[in-house]
Amino acid sequence: MYRTHTCGELRLAQAGQEVTLAGWIQIVRKFGSITFADLRDRYGITQLLFGEDLNAQLDQQPLGREFVVQAKGIVLERTNKNPNLATGDIEIKVTAFTILNKSVTPPFTIQDETDGGDDLRMKFRYLDLRRNAVKKNLELRYAVNRAARNYLHENQFMDLETPFLIKSTPEGARDFVVPSRMNPGQFYALPQSPQTFKQLLMVSGYDRYYQITKCFRDEDLRADRQPEFTQIDCEMSFVEQEDILSMFEGMIKHIFKAVKGIDYTEAVPRMTWEDAMWQYGNDKPDIRFGMSLLNIKSAFLKNGEYPAKGQLLAGTDFKVFNDAETVVAIAVPGCADHTRKQTDELTEWVKRPQIGMQGLVYIKVNTDGTYKSSVDKFFSEAQLKAIADAAGAKAGDLVLILAGAEERTRKAISELRLEMGERLGFRRKDEFKLLWVLDFPLFEYSEEDNRWVARHHPFTAPKPSHIDTMIGNDPVIGNAAEYLKHPYAQIKANAYDMVLNGNEIGGGSIRIFQRDLQEKMFAALGMSKEEANHKFGFLLGAFEYGAPPHGGIAFGMDRLCAILGGSESIRDFIAFPKNNSGRDVMLDAPSAIDQKQFDELQIKLDLKQ
Amino acid sequence: MYRTHTCGELRLAQAGQEVTLAGWIQIVRKFGSITFADLRDRYGITQLLFGEDLNAQLDQQPLGREFVVQAKGIVLERTNKNPNLATGDIEIKVTAFTILNKSVTPPFTIQDETDGGDDLRMKFRYLDLRRNAVKKNLELRYAVNRAARNYLHENQFMDLETPFLIKSTPEGARDFVVPSRMNPGQFYALPQSPQTFKQLLMVSGYDRYYQITKCFRDEDLRADRQPEFTQIDCEMSFVEQEDILSMFEGMIKHIFKAVKGIDYTEAVPRMTWEDAMWQYGNDKPDIRFGMSLLNIKSAFLKNGEYPAKGQLLAGTDFKVFNDAETVVAIAVPGCADHTRKQTDELTEWVKRPQIGMQGLVYIKVNTDGTYKSSVDKFFSEAQLKAIADAAGAKAGDLVLILAGAEERTRKAISELRLEMGERLGFRRKDEFKLLWVLDFPLFEYSEEDNRWVARHHPFTAPKPSHIDTMIGNDPVIGNAAEYLKHPYAQIKANAYDMVLNGNEIGGGSIRIFQRDLQEKMFAALGMSKEEANHKFGFLLGAFEYGAPPHGGIAFGMDRLCAILGGSESIRDFIAFPKNNSGRDVMLDAPSAIDQKQFDELQIKLDLKQ
Repeated sequence: MYRTHTCGELRLAQAGQEVTLAGWIQIVRKFGSITFADLRDRYGITQLLFGEDLNAQLDQQPLGREFVVQAKGIVLERTNKNPNLATGDIEIKVTAFTILNKSVTPPFTIQDETDGGDDLRMKFRYLDLRRNAVKKNLELRYAVNRAARNYLHENQFMDLETPFLIKSTPEGARDFVVPSRMNPGQFYALPQSPQTFKQLLMVSGYDRYYQITKCFRDEDLRADRQPEFTQIDCEMSFVEQEDILSMFEGMIKHIFKAVKGIDYTEAVPRMTWEDAMWQYGNDKPDIRFGMSLLNIKSAFLKNGEYPAKGQLLAGTDFKVFNDAETVVAIAVPGCADHTRKQTDELTEWVKRPQIGMQGLVYIKVNTDGTYKSSVDKFFSEAQLKAIADAAGAKAGDLVLILAGAEERTRKAISELRLEMGERLGFRRKDEFKLLWVLDFPLFEYSEEDNRWVARHHPFTAPKPSHIDTMIGNDPVIGNAAEYLKHPYAQIKANAYDMVLNGNEIGGGSIRIFQRDLQEKMFAALGMSKEEANHKFGFLLGAFEYGAPPHGGIAFGMDRLCAILGGSESIRDFIAFPKNNSGRDVMLDAPSAIDQKQFDELQIKLDLKQ
Repeated sequence: MYRTHTCGELRLAQAGQEVTLAGWIQIVRKFGSITFADLRDRYGITQLLFGEDLNAQLDQQPLGREFVVQAKGIVLERTNKNPNLATGDIEIKVTAFTILNKSVTPPFTIQDETDGGDDLRMKFRYLDLRRNAVKKNLELRYAVNRAARNYLHENQFMDLETPFLIKSTPEGARDFVVPSRMNPGQFYALPQSPQTFKQLLMVSGYDRYYQITKCFRDEDLRADRQPEFTQIDCEMSFVEQEDILSMFEGMIKHIFKAVKGIDYTEAVPRMTWEDAMWQYGNDKPDIRFGMSLLNIKSAFLKNGEYPAKGQLLAGTDFKVFNDAETVVAIAVPGCADHTRKQTDELTEWVKRPQIGMQGLVYIKVNTDGTYKSSVDKFFSEAQLKAIADAAGAKAGDLVLILAGAEERTRKAISELRLEMGERLGFRRKDEFKLLWVLDFPLFEYSEEDNRWVARHHPFTAPKPSHIDTMIGNDPVIGNAAEYLKHPYAQIKANAYDMVLNGNEIGGGSIRIFQRDLQEKMFAALGMSKEEANHKFGFLLGAFEYGAPPHGGIAFGMDRLCAILGGSESIRDFIAFPKNNSGRDVMLDAPSAIDQKQFDELQIKLDLKQ
């Protein structure tokens, strides 16, 4: 061992002891004939004091930033204590030192606030990882990993490894594939998730399974998506939805306690998918703040009903609202004093292509009891007041109203709500609000193929009360224009998402465990019997040999860590992330391979011009 | 929840309680108007008793093997207790039951001694996994996983995830590669191990890293090798060899205790690679038994010396021995009474192509003090006695002697020793003997390329005292015939293997952490500067920014579990293994992919006729 202690552990109690430390030189300061250096390792920083006796050696072997040094010496009480440092009461009077390795000047400073840009830090990721800010993120990640494992172990879950070289069954996302040299012309796929394997493990009777494992999706990378990502993947047998919710609510609360020291004792609220869309325009609402939607007009069905608020527009003659499929509003607290410039800026904000609205209507609920809006021409003050009241606006609030096509407008008002919440400081990084979203639709309609697609995945069970609807009806959609009237449009899934601060951190479902229902699902998705057997014959087969009722959930480890760490970026919580082109710029991967590799795999390039 | 209790937990104390169980029907027995059924789940088996009142339902809904059943009833004390079953004191008087899912007749019996062949069990692996024997293996695997994690956590190791989509740098084994759709013409590789990443993490200051992770090698599969396998992968900074040995000796002992309840308190013996080859003909000797080698003649250098036992052949005139490069013997306890038929069979055994010897010489040390050999013509009784004594044979023992070319003969005598140990019952599955093998040669000679190859891998450091030899000499081999005289042939590696019962379960080394030494290593392996920079530029670069001294080890999880479980086959300890052609016969993978996938990846097949 090159050290007797770490750089984080020495205290006054050790004064007088001879110790040996090893680490990196953070900084060197010379005061006359005396030299101070901060020595850093994973555990902390300790001040080294080099007396005159070492000046000759220091002249010959000068210390530089990031040099690796072993130093032997005596622990002394500092005259000038540093209360900001755990080891700040002491320093080491060095008696001998060795430079274990030198360092050239790093391309950026190894400090919390570094001068290195993103690209440079990624290329030299091994230096970026030295920064305390990044180290804390990875420590948090390990703490989450550990806490999840401990909780699951205590609850009789077993970590069971599933294979990485599996079969390509492209459903939804694209597979990464791996050519097989031993089976020329054939390919493995990397798993998008261990979904079918964990279900087979339930069929095998393993009862409670978990795995913290890498998954792979070859998708065009949106900001902050990675081609490989980590899931906390879990499955249980003999359970109903309620059992899963309570088990994994418990897990997240355990993680909060173990990792953040937070006693999250309140029950996690539950919201149906319909309510979430109705109240927040979003299936993963951020409930750290209010500003829920006033649905004035809407094509969106909630429990089969359109909004009754349409009367708010009775007797008005504003063409934009009259022509719109959907009119929705939010009341933004305390913003009635927005200037023209500010409301113009908001209008521009909603007109950006990412939001795509034609404009923005506002109503200022002034503190003097008056109402002022951008549509004063078309609305009486009483009409404005009625809308503002319905939106829950109080004196001093600003009501923002969007109008347009249902889907786009609902999405836009949701984005606007989040933006205003952000601007008003309602989205505090140190506040954590969990939410279960339940009762998703089982199917979505694919206009392109005029058929159903699975909203979650093809293994999700319908609500028990909807099984008969699914079995008893032909999934074929006769009249594309009236797909919403097809009985399948009403089928709800036995599925659930866990939402944290407006992010989906986990999602799962009770699974189909009956062969006939699973076959019906594949048929609904437009798969022929042959195709279903080719792709999922093993699972259909397994369901014939006594498959138990089961269900599960998977948590996105990267996202969960990022939110717990108060960051927007999952990349900060991955040791060696890839960039938005799926490249590892440190390794320079992917890269060309040798002709010998092509020959052995019996493939060749077929590049488009 | 479909159950109030598992099938393994009810005892007499619960008598009278109303419970609900769920599980699989193991067996149904009808006695007159009463029906018994064994209900099985992951935790055990509980007997169900169906009275007359349920006969009507049982007639309508008969129970079959592997049906999934939920049963509600009262816990009763059994009149006929079964002491072999944890729940054998009680049974459940069923008041109501539901068949949750039916099962067709399984293709083999779900019992410890199944009637299913290997192929059938692999195709229906989800049923094979139900067998108690397989379940115990996976439980053992999870226990090893858990014990390793706990030990490493206690010792400040952090689980840090390294990427799976990396760069192809084929050194030694072949990479599996993954075409990149977003970077057409370029490929990722799957990691053969996280080697370079864990070294970068040391450069980043993470100090103590571990990961239990999948690794991939596209090799022709010998029996009991898998294309994907699991490693317990570890690395430490600021350590010397001794620190690694003591840390991981501790880990294995912790695993023994946690998993097998074994207090492995004795120190793990250490043996140099030279001693292992000299005494056992093998770099992973099984030291559960003796029978070490008598090196009569040998081309193998031990500490630069040839054997001094050559005088045992002085004055004899047996051409086979005189012409042989190597003559080695073992004394097999208690086998002097082998019949002619038995010694003939042994001769045939060593002549098999896998062993490849021309013949076998034996000396029987009879209990009456006489000596009888297959070469009585050429050896006096005194000469036979001298050899037998030198081999450590006692009255009643059988000395077996092989002669031939050094490498083949040494390998053959090692195999013969293991075979005789096996036949004599010396290789007990419940006895565990650990051993460290140290001081491997750093390089092996490649006749094909007339250059050095790394015996461990290119990141292994030489012994500190051999660094100067490495730096100070040109690695080029002038005279191929005399490669053994090249200074590099004498360089020993700072590497170590952990051996358990004759199997390498772990291996590692202290790493090179200086750029110049690493460059010298790459040069020794015949890599140009350009090639080294292209493949490993990121690592060479990292070594310039203050790389600490570091080293590590990786344990083969699959093999470790198999040995602890007393099995020869790692496949029994993998939930979803592949066969010897790298196929998953359950999934039928690998398989063909769609033309769309080829088009997107911009590759095509190039099949040889």
